Amino acid sequence: MQLKVVLHVDRENQGRLLAALNNIQNLFAQAGPENANVCVVANGTAVNLFQRERPEPYSEDIERLSGLGVHFLLCRNSLSNMDIPESSLLGTCKVVPAGILELVRLQMEGYAYVKP
Amino acid sequence: MQLKVVLHVDRENQGRLLAALNNIQNLFAQAGPENANVCVVANGTAVNLFQRERPEPYSEDIERLSGLGVHFLLCRNSLSNMDIPESSLLGTCKVVPAGILELVRLQMEGYAYVKP
Amino acid sequence: MQLKVVLHVDRENQGRLLAALNNIQNLFAQAGPENANVCVVANGTAVNLFQRERPEPYSEDIERLSGLGVHFLLCRNSLSNMDIPESSLLGTCKVVPAGILELVRLQMEGYAYVKP
Repeated sequence: MQLKVVLHVDRENQGRLLAALNNIQNLFAQAGPENANVCVVANGTAVNLFQRERPEPYSEDIERLSGLGVHFLLCRNSLSNMDIPESSLLGTCKVVPAGILELVRLQMEGYAYVKP
Repeated sequence: MQLKVVLHVDRENQGRLLAALNNIQNLFAQAGPENANVCVVANGTAVNLFQRERPEPYSEDIERLSGLGVHFLLCRNSLSNMDIPESSLLGTCKVVPAGILELVRLQMEGYAYVKP
Repeated sequence: MQLKVVLHVDRENQGRLLAALNNIQNLFAQAGPENANVCVVANGTAVNLFQRERPEPYSEDIERLSGLGVHFLLCRNSLSNMDIPESSLLGTCKVVPAGILELVRLQMEGYAYVKP
């Protein structure tokens, strides 16, 4: 059975994001990337962590995991509240109208929820 | 399909409660209040945030969202532990025997879980 | 209907673990231990809280709840990262290959998720 999981980050806290990325790598190591559908939903101040202009050690991990099929979904409401233009985001991130709606929708589609 | 979500707050932290209320407003703005069943379960020290005698800017939001159908469910165990009489709570809150039981029951009824 | 819930702890924070243990006791008091399947998944720095060499007031609660059927599942990746030998863990804990995989698997089997 295909594993499905959405990880939720909502604070500008690198430790929490690193925990989420680490979770994904452990899941892939254990089950194989081809057997897991993984989304990361970022809302609140966490969207600050995904700016291209502020490359961090984890930025490469985000790009690499995106290449393995992980979807990084950023909340447009949160981006607006913090005046972050979409053009400043890491190229592999996708903006969604409301992070909360994705969190609900994905769970209703059978995704497990994990809050690192 | 009707959206169903339970938001969980368990600390006396206004920022976390405000994030939860903000999530609900974004969900309603995107999907319409009539298309979403929303519960907030508060346990632990978070129950301190719902006292009528300590009105806060967010108290009006709680009343307003209650009017739109959001259920605010407070854990009786937590209220007892903190010596908070039920009569001191905001009028639209409902007391439940155990917050954890609501969190489990609602998810088993198909509610998504979000921890802001 | 049998209640099923997995509680997730991922930080070396006694308060969060105590909240999880308290949740379980409240659930059992309300529903009866025989009507609830309960797992605790610990990963990240939270695995530090389960060492036999560092007995804490809550260690007895863990043993007692284990006796009532609660499963305490610790992430092997996290134990390795922190150089904690499995032999140093409380005897009722079980080590799993990846905490994240248990969190996903249990939810896909119908377990509710709660993050205290």
